[in-house]
Amino acid sequence: MTEPLKIGLIGTGRIGQVHAASIAALPGLALHWVCDPFLESAKSTAERFGGAQVTADPADVLSSGDVDAVIVASPTPTHVDLIDAAIDAGLPVLCEKPIDLDIERVDGLREKARRAATPISLGFNRRFDPHVAELRRRVGAGDIGGLEQLTITSRDPAPPPGEYVAVSGGIFRDMTIHDFDMARFFVPDIVEVTARGARQFSAEIAAEGDYDAAVVTLRGASGELVTITNSRHSAYGYDQRIEAFGDAGMLQVGNVGPTVVRSYGASSVEAQGPYHNFFLERYSDAYRLELVAFAAAIRGDEQTNPGFEDGRAALILADAAARSAAEGVSVEIDPNA
Amino acid sequence: MTEPLKIGLIGTGRIGQVHAASIAALPGLALHWVCDPFLESAKSTAERFGGAQVTADPADVLSSGDVDAVIVASPTPTHVDLIDAAIDAGLPVLCEKPIDLDIERVDGLREKARRAATPISLGFNRRFDPHVAELRRRVGAGDIGGLEQLTITSRDPAPPPGEYVAVSGGIFRDMTIHDFDMARFFVPDIVEVTARGARQFSAEIAAEGDYDAAVVTLRGASGELVTITNSRHSAYGYDQRIEAFGDAGMLQVGNVGPTVVRSYGASSVEAQGPYHNFFLERYSDAYRLELVAFAAAIRGDEQTNPGFEDGRAALILADAAARSAAEGVSVEIDPNA
Amino acid sequence: MTEPLKIGLIGTGRIGQVHAASIAALPGLALHWVCDPFLESAKSTAERFGGAQVTADPADVLSSGDVDAVIVASPTPTHVDLIDAAIDAGLPVLCEKPIDLDIERVDGLREKARRAATPISLGFNRRFDPHVAELRRRVGAGDIGGLEQLTITSRDPAPPPGEYVAVSGGIFRDMTIHDFDMARFFVPDIVEVTARGARQFSAEIAAEGDYDAAVVTLRGASGELVTITNSRHSAYGYDQRIEAFGDAGMLQVGNVGPTVVRSYGASSVEAQGPYHNFFLERYSDAYRLELVAFAAAIRGDEQTNPGFEDGRAALILADAAARSAAEGVSVEIDPNA
Amino acid sequence: MTEPLKIGLIGTGRIGQVHAASIAALPGLALHWVCDPFLESAKSTAERFGGAQVTADPADVLSSGDVDAVIVASPTPTHVDLIDAAIDAGLPVLCEKPIDLDIERVDGLREKARRAATPISLGFNRRFDPHVAELRRRVGAGDIGGLEQLTITSRDPAPPPGEYVAVSGGIFRDMTIHDFDMARFFVPDIVEVTARGARQFSAEIAAEGDYDAAVVTLRGASGELVTITNSRHSAYGYDQRIEAFGDAGMLQVGNVGPTVVRSYGASSVEAQGPYHNFFLERYSDAYRLELVAFAAAIRGDEQTNPGFEDGRAALILADAAARSAAEGVSVEIDPNA
Repeated sequence: MTEPLKIGLIGTGRIGQVHAASIAALPGLALHWVCDPFLESAKSTAERFGGAQVTADPADVLSSGDVDAVIVASPTPTHVDLIDAAIDAGLPVLCEKPIDLDIERVDGLREKARRAATPISLGFNRRFDPHVAELRRRVGAGDIGGLEQLTITSRDPAPPPGEYVAVSGGIFRDMTIHDFDMARFFVPDIVEVTARGARQFSAEIAAEGDYDAAVVTLRGASGELVTITNSRHSAYGYDQRIEAFGDAGMLQVGNVGPTVVRSYGASSVEAQGPYHNFFLERYSDAYRLELVAFAAAIRGDEQTNPGFEDGRAALILADAAARSAAEGVSVEIDPNA
Repeated sequence: MTEPLKIGLIGTGRIGQVHAASIAALPGLALHWVCDPFLESAKSTAERFGGAQVTADPADVLSSGDVDAVIVASPTPTHVDLIDAAIDAGLPVLCEKPIDLDIERVDGLREKARRAATPISLGFNRRFDPHVAELRRRVGAGDIGGLEQLTITSRDPAPPPGEYVAVSGGIFRDMTIHDFDMARFFVPDIVEVTARGARQFSAEIAAEGDYDAAVVTLRGASGELVTITNSRHSAYGYDQRIEAFGDAGMLQVGNVGPTVVRSYGASSVEAQGPYHNFFLERYSDAYRLELVAFAAAIRGDEQTNPGFEDGRAALILADAAARSAAEGVSVEIDPNA
Repeated sequence: MTEPLKIGLIGTGRIGQVHAASIAALPGLALHWVCDPFLESAKSTAERFGGAQVTADPADVLSSGDVDAVIVASPTPTHVDLIDAAIDAGLPVLCEKPIDLDIERVDGLREKARRAATPISLGFNRRFDPHVAELRRRVGAGDIGGLEQLTITSRDPAPPPGEYVAVSGGIFRDMTIHDFDMARFFVPDIVEVTARGARQFSAEIAAEGDYDAAVVTLRGASGELVTITNSRHSAYGYDQRIEAFGDAGMLQVGNVGPTVVRSYGASSVEAQGPYHNFFLERYSDAYRLELVAFAAAIRGDEQTNPGFEDGRAALILADAAARSAAEGVSVEIDPNA
Repeated sequence: MTEPLKIGLIGTGRIGQVHAASIAALPGLALHWVCDPFLESAKSTAERFGGAQVTADPADVLSSGDVDAVIVASPTPTHVDLIDAAIDAGLPVLCEKPIDLDIERVDGLREKARRAATPISLGFNRRFDPHVAELRRRVGAGDIGGLEQLTITSRDPAPPPGEYVAVSGGIFRDMTIHDFDMARFFVPDIVEVTARGARQFSAEIAAEGDYDAAVVTLRGASGELVTITNSRHSAYGYDQRIEAFGDAGMLQVGNVGPTVVRSYGASSVEAQGPYHNFFLERYSDAYRLELVAFAAAIRGDEQTNPGFEDGRAALILADAAARSAAEGVSVEIDPNA
């Protein structure tokens, strides 16, 4: 066995824990540093997953000379600076989405990111979901001919707390951004964004001036139409579906539950138990597999994780959607700008 | 349009009503006589479906010189005599199953039936169900290669009343007989019957010495294995499924409901509403289509309805199953006897 | 039995044939007059379905004093005049959609239609599809709580001929119009239309300046979001699906095929045979049931068929969609105008 | 973290590899000894999974004083002696099924196994499949009322090589034995076995006097009927389904594939890609979870793995099935003997 890659984990919130667990389970990776301004959280995470050095300061990790790569799972406002510092330290970095809520801050780092010698990966983990990956593979293999329409349904089980909504950047930058990346996984060049938002159920979200539901239509450079349907709640659990329609057929990824048990009774038949509750369960494989891909890139393989440009492109679509929804106009995008 | 065929209907119980409705809906058939010892029932049936001559005596219908065919939907003990009389009258006859509960009475008519110049059809309507017919067509077309295993699940929503059970001839002759015919639709020559019965829930059925559940294994002349699973109750409605397994694949007919609406909620997802409640709803198309086939045979086309020999063969399997269940032995059958 | 209603059928094209067949199969209706400028077509239709008086001139039917109602299945440009004449003749009328391609012509008849003493029904037959009707019933019964999002997928198996496209009024007025009515079946008051069209595969349709694919987002008066996805072709047959999403759950109507046979082989499992090929097969029940409802209205029951105002409202949505698609702006609608 | 349990693995064939991989992936277990008469295989297995001591002689492992438990994945004829030796060494043992092909050898160890102070687990891993476990949980929770019928479909993708068939003990002891244990997972006390075997496709299997297909009907002590349908080949892959039918409803576990992608094309719709190819893929979770349960038992928790008595009971059912199939009689079993 080759030596495991030493990983520095920055941020030990919900996603940080997921990454720590994946690192512990993967033979090729080792948790070496854990960083969180709440040092107690860093310590308990390190302990839970087999031990690691801990610090409250990311600079300790980056300057340690003792890690092969860093994973950034800290709050969004820290992302740009940490990516920047990782580049300077010559360390591969996997950063959670979004790069930032402000496209100008993103653009400020763009040129440096483009020239970086080390891999910069964005945490659009859904691309690594085995169902999505197989769908993408089959579309790429021509199973449906030319892709004409992509239909993404994405509904969260329940809205986030109001205080989170207030700093989230709005539904398009916070929630739809995953769907924008999914759209770009199939249709990389988007040239037009049309979005409608609605306030259907949450007074709290409305009070923040945000939408709790949205429909977005994207147009691809080759005339593809992509539809995204969002809601911030879903009585039947996390709803994550994709349909790819082409001139030769259609492929679907439906929802996934913990088991395939079906029940038959007096009031209903063929009923399946609830789907996976939310993204940690639904995309558990995806979180693990994105680290596998990141590890390969660290070791010198071609990068298959989405990168800085993908993070920037998704944010541009989110900004355009916000403007389209506000003004009632379709917004053109130059995918090469 | 050619003149509709004049049909004499003998028996106006539940199945008689179904046939009367089918006759009324089919342009090629006309209800011309309706016969029932309860003359009021004959009258109301005739009136409901557009008028017809009525009588309490089947002989009036058979000797009228005024019908092209008769449908026998009267109680089982009358079947042999009415088929016999229809042959004498030179009239095609569609008789409900079974021919009789006593194989000796059936055999007494066998030679005459074999020599009859007019079509004798048995009411094994399930062969005409569009789903079953398509399954049979595809098996016949070789879609699964050679047929090796046939799995029939057949559960009634609720048991019949005790007084009916008492005269029914037992589960194998009354309920499984449809499944025996279904088995023979795919595997005409059965050479061995193994059956196990159980008393699982009905004290009433047990009191009659009958089973409320059964499993039957048949062996075909080419080594095919057929499994029939029966229950006299089913909390989720009428359960009617068939699987045909061959060396090149498998084909299934699942259950059917009134609509395809599926519901998604907090406790279950993908739930369909209840299936068709019982045979009148589930096999409504089949009842109509068996009359279409019968009409074609009356007009001189080749008979596609199951005939006298099919009715006899199913009864022989039922008798063998009853003996196998009682004695705990497999029973050999000579399909050419 | 009460006397069947005498129906005059005007127009014997594809839909006219469907109506003639339904009339022949329904005991409460009789085909009494058949009218077509191609008198031979009128004659052959009359003969095929049991005989009727024939004429090339609709006026003969309307003035005959010999029909209880008329069904208008002639080309679109004749609809306004024939509805007008039916009102004058005091005859209930079921007219195929659309009323006209020109909203001004529709509005010219509006006041007279509103005051008409006799039922005016529009042929939006899909409302009578048993699956759709059950979905509507369950949404109305509160099974999903308040309706928030409605997702309609509607793809034709293959595009119409170029000469038809040229006079069709464009995809929104010709094809989407059924989906607009479906949207209004669930969300009667639409206040905003946003549409994007695309030219994805048909040079012929593009040459007519029309779209071969479209996505429409509607907003209802209570904030509901409705998404319609259209394509003029579909490799896997007629695609007709509806999802109704509410705060308490979701209900779906999926596609329907001729049988439920599923196949299992080396390259795929759980595969169903092709869906119903097109609307005549998919909506055969709906065509019959809309006549049943029309007959009830003729006999004095409350009208359940969509009426003149429904036909007008769908056309207004189509016009708005065409404008939205052309100009890249959302278009507001006053549902009470 | 508590110290991982040191495991000695005896046998490095196909199943041995599976266990080695599970041990490597589970934080609570460590591969400490690897034993195989082919020492090279022991060495390469040890190396592949992170290193361990190796030997060709199981006695080295058992007497090492250096393991917490052993896993026996060596050929069937060695099982009885190795379980015996593990008891003597005071080591918990997880032994692959079957204990032996000869019930007399099993009975020879029975009393000693019963008195053993350390856990003896049998490798009926399917009980730990998450789908099966959830089915069992829901049946136990009364979701279907009282269990009346259990239907097990179990078909292998392809027959084993002839040389394996020759020493396998026959289909009932080799293949159906898993289904017998599954039956007993739901209906522990079986009182009657009725089996029919067939030779449907494999001349090689027939030449060994074995069956390539079988149907078994079991009767439980409370009158339950269990049906097992087997085939040694399946064109559509590994077929592993269970239905539990009770007086209040039915629960099903269907087949499972690598992804939920469904395809829609001109010749079929709703088609899923092939199922998991065979047991290593289908039951990968089960193999891991049975080790988790074994580890818990080693640490002193109550044993949830099936034990020696379960291994013996399954063999008794297999012997009875073989006799029933040969003689054409139902065979009674005393579940308390």
